[in-house]
Amino acid sequence: MRRLGILTSGGDCPGVNAVIRGAVLAGEIVHGCGFMGFRDGWRGLLEQDVVPLPRHSVRGISRRGGTILGTSRTNPLSHGGVDRVRAGFRRNGLDGLIAIGGEGTLAAARELCSQGLQVIGVPKTIDNDLGATDYTFGFDSAVQTATEAIDRLRTTGESHHRCMVAEVMGRNAGWIALHAGMAAGAHAILIPEHPVTLDQVAAWVMSAHGRGRAPLVVVAEAFTPTGQAAPYAPRGLDTFGRPRLGGIGRLLEEELQLMTGLETRATVLGHIQRGGEPTAYDRVLATRLGIAAVDAAANGRWGTMVALRGTDIVPVGLEEALGTLKLVPEERYLEAAVLFG
Amino acid sequence: MRRLGILTSGGDCPGVNAVIRGAVLAGEIVHGCGFMGFRDGWRGLLEQDVVPLPRHSVRGISRRGGTILGTSRTNPLSHGGVDRVRAGFRRNGLDGLIAIGGEGTLAAARELCSQGLQVIGVPKTIDNDLGATDYTFGFDSAVQTATEAIDRLRTTGESHHRCMVAEVMGRNAGWIALHAGMAAGAHAILIPEHPVTLDQVAAWVMSAHGRGRAPLVVVAEAFTPTGQAAPYAPRGLDTFGRPRLGGIGRLLEEELQLMTGLETRATVLGHIQRGGEPTAYDRVLATRLGIAAVDAAANGRWGTMVALRGTDIVPVGLEEALGTLKLVPEERYLEAAVLFG
Amino acid sequence: MRRLGILTSGGDCPGVNAVIRGAVLAGEIVHGCGFMGFRDGWRGLLEQDVVPLPRHSVRGISRRGGTILGTSRTNPLSHGGVDRVRAGFRRNGLDGLIAIGGEGTLAAARELCSQGLQVIGVPKTIDNDLGATDYTFGFDSAVQTATEAIDRLRTTGESHHRCMVAEVMGRNAGWIALHAGMAAGAHAILIPEHPVTLDQVAAWVMSAHGRGRAPLVVVAEAFTPTGQAAPYAPRGLDTFGRPRLGGIGRLLEEELQLMTGLETRATVLGHIQRGGEPTAYDRVLATRLGIAAVDAAANGRWGTMVALRGTDIVPVGLEEALGTLKLVPEERYLEAAVLFG
Amino acid sequence: MRRLGILTSGGDCPGVNAVIRGAVLAGEIVHGCGFMGFRDGWRGLLEQDVVPLPRHSVRGISRRGGTILGTSRTNPLSHGGVDRVRAGFRRNGLDGLIAIGGEGTLAAARELCSQGLQVIGVPKTIDNDLGATDYTFGFDSAVQTATEAIDRLRTTGESHHRCMVAEVMGRNAGWIALHAGMAAGAHAILIPEHPVTLDQVAAWVMSAHGRGRAPLVVVAEAFTPTGQAAPYAPRGLDTFGRPRLGGIGRLLEEELQLMTGLETRATVLGHIQRGGEPTAYDRVLATRLGIAAVDAAANGRWGTMVALRGTDIVPVGLEEALGTLKLVPEERYLEAAVLFG
Repeated sequence: MRRLGILTSGGDCPGVNAVIRGAVLAGEIVHGCGFMGFRDGWRGLLEQDVVPLPRHSVRGISRRGGTILGTSRTNPLSHGGVDRVRAGFRRNGLDGLIAIGGEGTLAAARELCSQGLQVIGVPKTIDNDLGATDYTFGFDSAVQTATEAIDRLRTTGESHHRCMVAEVMGRNAGWIALHAGMAAGAHAILIPEHPVTLDQVAAWVMSAHGRGRAPLVVVAEAFTPTGQAAPYAPRGLDTFGRPRLGGIGRLLEEELQLMTGLETRATVLGHIQRGGEPTAYDRVLATRLGIAAVDAAANGRWGTMVALRGTDIVPVGLEEALGTLKLVPEERYLEAAVLFG
Repeated sequence: MRRLGILTSGGDCPGVNAVIRGAVLAGEIVHGCGFMGFRDGWRGLLEQDVVPLPRHSVRGISRRGGTILGTSRTNPLSHGGVDRVRAGFRRNGLDGLIAIGGEGTLAAARELCSQGLQVIGVPKTIDNDLGATDYTFGFDSAVQTATEAIDRLRTTGESHHRCMVAEVMGRNAGWIALHAGMAAGAHAILIPEHPVTLDQVAAWVMSAHGRGRAPLVVVAEAFTPTGQAAPYAPRGLDTFGRPRLGGIGRLLEEELQLMTGLETRATVLGHIQRGGEPTAYDRVLATRLGIAAVDAAANGRWGTMVALRGTDIVPVGLEEALGTLKLVPEERYLEAAVLFG
Repeated sequence: MRRLGILTSGGDCPGVNAVIRGAVLAGEIVHGCGFMGFRDGWRGLLEQDVVPLPRHSVRGISRRGGTILGTSRTNPLSHGGVDRVRAGFRRNGLDGLIAIGGEGTLAAARELCSQGLQVIGVPKTIDNDLGATDYTFGFDSAVQTATEAIDRLRTTGESHHRCMVAEVMGRNAGWIALHAGMAAGAHAILIPEHPVTLDQVAAWVMSAHGRGRAPLVVVAEAFTPTGQAAPYAPRGLDTFGRPRLGGIGRLLEEELQLMTGLETRATVLGHIQRGGEPTAYDRVLATRLGIAAVDAAANGRWGTMVALRGTDIVPVGLEEALGTLKLVPEERYLEAAVLFG
Repeated sequence: MRRLGILTSGGDCPGVNAVIRGAVLAGEIVHGCGFMGFRDGWRGLLEQDVVPLPRHSVRGISRRGGTILGTSRTNPLSHGGVDRVRAGFRRNGLDGLIAIGGEGTLAAARELCSQGLQVIGVPKTIDNDLGATDYTFGFDSAVQTATEAIDRLRTTGESHHRCMVAEVMGRNAGWIALHAGMAAGAHAILIPEHPVTLDQVAAWVMSAHGRGRAPLVVVAEAFTPTGQAAPYAPRGLDTFGRPRLGGIGRLLEEELQLMTGLETRATVLGHIQRGGEPTAYDRVLATRLGIAAVDAAANGRWGTMVALRGTDIVPVGLEEALGTLKLVPEERYLEAAVLFG
């Protein structure tokens, strides 16, 4: 193994640079292997937009947010497909590719592997909704940022005797809402896996209010109240393909104020959850994933992705890894709901 | 001077508790003077909702966000007026009152003083738009929180080659935008004091893009582009009297994307700017203001507010202090604009 | 089950209050069970220093550092022993006890259980050196605080071309050094499980220096260089039973400066690692442990402690849990050492 | 004015990079003036170790700690002196020099100006002890970092009923101790400007203890108790010219424990106070100073340094600026001491 490629695809996620650094250092130091970086995900591979990644180019980047390689949502399979990727491999003399990305990227990696190309995946989603790994890097940073922001909202709620609503990320799964809500001591956590009626939410709010608390509601962007046709547009449905500002947080603000008579304010935390410095937890996890991805490549474990299981990093077949979203299980939701009172 | 009242009125602001603590400790230790706290601002004084504030009740509160006394927007002059306030003074045996609040509270304090009541004001606005004081407490915390959030947005912008727009607070003045924008290295800072056209904003954005940067725009909520009738509703104009989510940030997101062709994303930082722990700067400033307010009371300087001038805390006549908003002066804006390039 | 006791013993650790809150809320809401808190660990139980813990007493405490119950190092077995504890149970009408503490407390819990008393343990050590649980709460916060501090040291090292040494906690095991060192990108991580010579450390330092870097060394307090009789006193060995300031950090400062000729500075991070707000990760873990401890009590699982296994919280027999320190395994050290270059 | 030089000298200080960025951008954009950077302070000028500083080289650096130019303690006057500096000016075609540094650098700048060279100073000291400016950049960051660390120590003190001692920087003046101590709510603040006896310190400690508090003492490194020949070595006096670990914090730990019988722990915050990201306050102040330094050069105000006065940045003659240390005035100390109780 003499040369590997590496690319980062899909949404920004704290820790991506630590994966790159871990891979490049392990490659050079342990395996004597050089790295080429492709810019803006698969686009760089398809369009031969490539930069060498010697050791000094990854100095000190593990604490930097974002990705030094840039990213895009280009899908390699729909842009000329496997042949162009194969040509990219050949042109750059690659023995294999480390692809850091979400479900789309991992599915593409699987397809490429089935066509004989050598790819290792590194799962990346702040939403933590990928099966086969206990946690994805970036999730801890998103939860920490959301929790700090919600801590701030709480003091305003208490001073003004308001109900505060915080809308956090979570397109399919409520992991960020569950963890940030539990960490911040929310009086209601609303996630798509466990729909409840607005009446139930209002009841939780009034219960907290009745105990003299300023009610705090944490809601995942994809939550829909039972019996409501979504009259709001969740992330991604805007004319321009941009996040709607008038999502579920806004709906709750209006409805809860009407239903409870309490002054209610929503804040949409938005992009601050996915940018910025990773937590130490994510830096360690991401660094280990980067190292493990190169080890997997060196061991010829193509067609796997590296995953966290307990405290170990292990390669997992992409076949097994894909397919099912990891949703918040009922018992985890009920555990958190204990605290709603 | 044996007993003083204290109340906090208007919007939440980091540092309020440090003012309360500074006043109570200085009162008890230096002047042998006890404190009564009124709950939820003037409402507590009008409705006799009052709590004693012995020394131990203010333990460790200077780092806590919000206000332990609660707040409201009750205006004492429009709720039965001066006579009810006077009755409240008498009922509680007050020698004077420390009123912590914004322009409305300080104007009420002036009116009450003109009717013979003894009041000292402590200016409170995160917007920093009050004349007669170099800075108001809470402003530094708001700028720090906004800057950290904008730092996070920047990494997303750079990874995705997007234009990022951050909407910050500032109902009348652009101080938070000016400072947070300068601290975060924004490519355009938009404040109500200095209207520019959307074409100018787009030109700044394209200039940054042309230099290979991910354009970063920081906008105060009250900014209106030149030649635009505001088609958006700034803070406070909603049917429910709540902040609009679809304000200037949203407008810029749509317009800049159309005008520049760059993917553009807006984030409305909202309430996280006014909650949570104060910075050390604000804790020191607020503590000093609390001590100085009691000193002013002990010296019979009724009808003044305490203000920061350079590194000194001085009493300033409320007549002088009120009347003019402190806007961002032209030279400060031009100084920052140097960096837009 | 109508009434449980709860106590916190041993060193301060971020997340203790979240355990207390989780237990009290789960007890009251799910099991209809009241809580008594004993002050300063086992001392409160032996001396009947006890406070009721109704729901409102644990409001908002999960983000507060330290423990609202106080702590001490009192050992119940050496202070009159099992009989006094049994009397304490009877006097307070306890159905069982939740004991939050380190190895000493868990060993005491096991002994008490073997004598017929009903105790559930919650493991607490920032050192993360307890077997039978993937992570202990408090560890993530300690690593985060240490990492942020080391990030600060790095900039000084780079500006002055110095070698910076950071001494972190770790009495028996090098977990904090391993994780904080990996997160901060250290050029050498020194842990007691993997002794190396000073020559090796100096070689790593010179290697980093040779690549134009400011060398960064992270050392666990209990590390002893191979071939060195410890001429320094690790944590706890001072005349007063206090942490020595002149520990391994200081030794490295002197020796590395002499051996490499590079200006070298050591910082002993000390107590800042164990105080202050827990991270969101620790708040979630600690809350879940508190809930699970009460569930274990309700299910009569006396003599167990609650532990993290992957993403699950499970009860583990104290017999199994105690006995072996969880040291950093060789493969984890080698994984990190890849990055030393 | 076509070309300016810039250098950074003396100890690391958060905000230095923001000064560099502000100067380079203002130079290029406003004045059409290029910049040369000298590496490691005056050494780079004397030894012609120089790098061009085009605009893109200062991208995004204002939030980075340390200095991209490196620093040293080289004194230009004692290394061949004015003639070598003059030669450096000529060789690089400099119209003038921006020198960012502490008292030594500013004194050198004054001497160089008196010999006909064109220099503008930018004052830099985290100690805030320089006259003629209200605050120096870096000070706010140091106070914020120290305050956060002391907040952490407090929770340990409260949990263990200990007296906690935090030793902060301050070689001549107690500004960091004063501000961080006030922000953290210390029960005693000890600064060199206001010596007190150990008996007085112990009395403050016992007074806090008597009120049920965990005593918190913040001490500047240069504080000496009245009547004590310093048996400890303050910063800088070590054999190797390095900070002593066994300074005043250590002395207080031992003495207070003996005098009060309370378990006492000292933490020396050390270098973490001067590294890492600047606060927003310092980024704004430093950026403005950088811009103002170039303006001063463009206006031919050689021999001045730029200073903060109220909210304005003004040039001040170096003659006036130097000479007297800015110590904590008696009234500021007494104001803080009110809170000791």
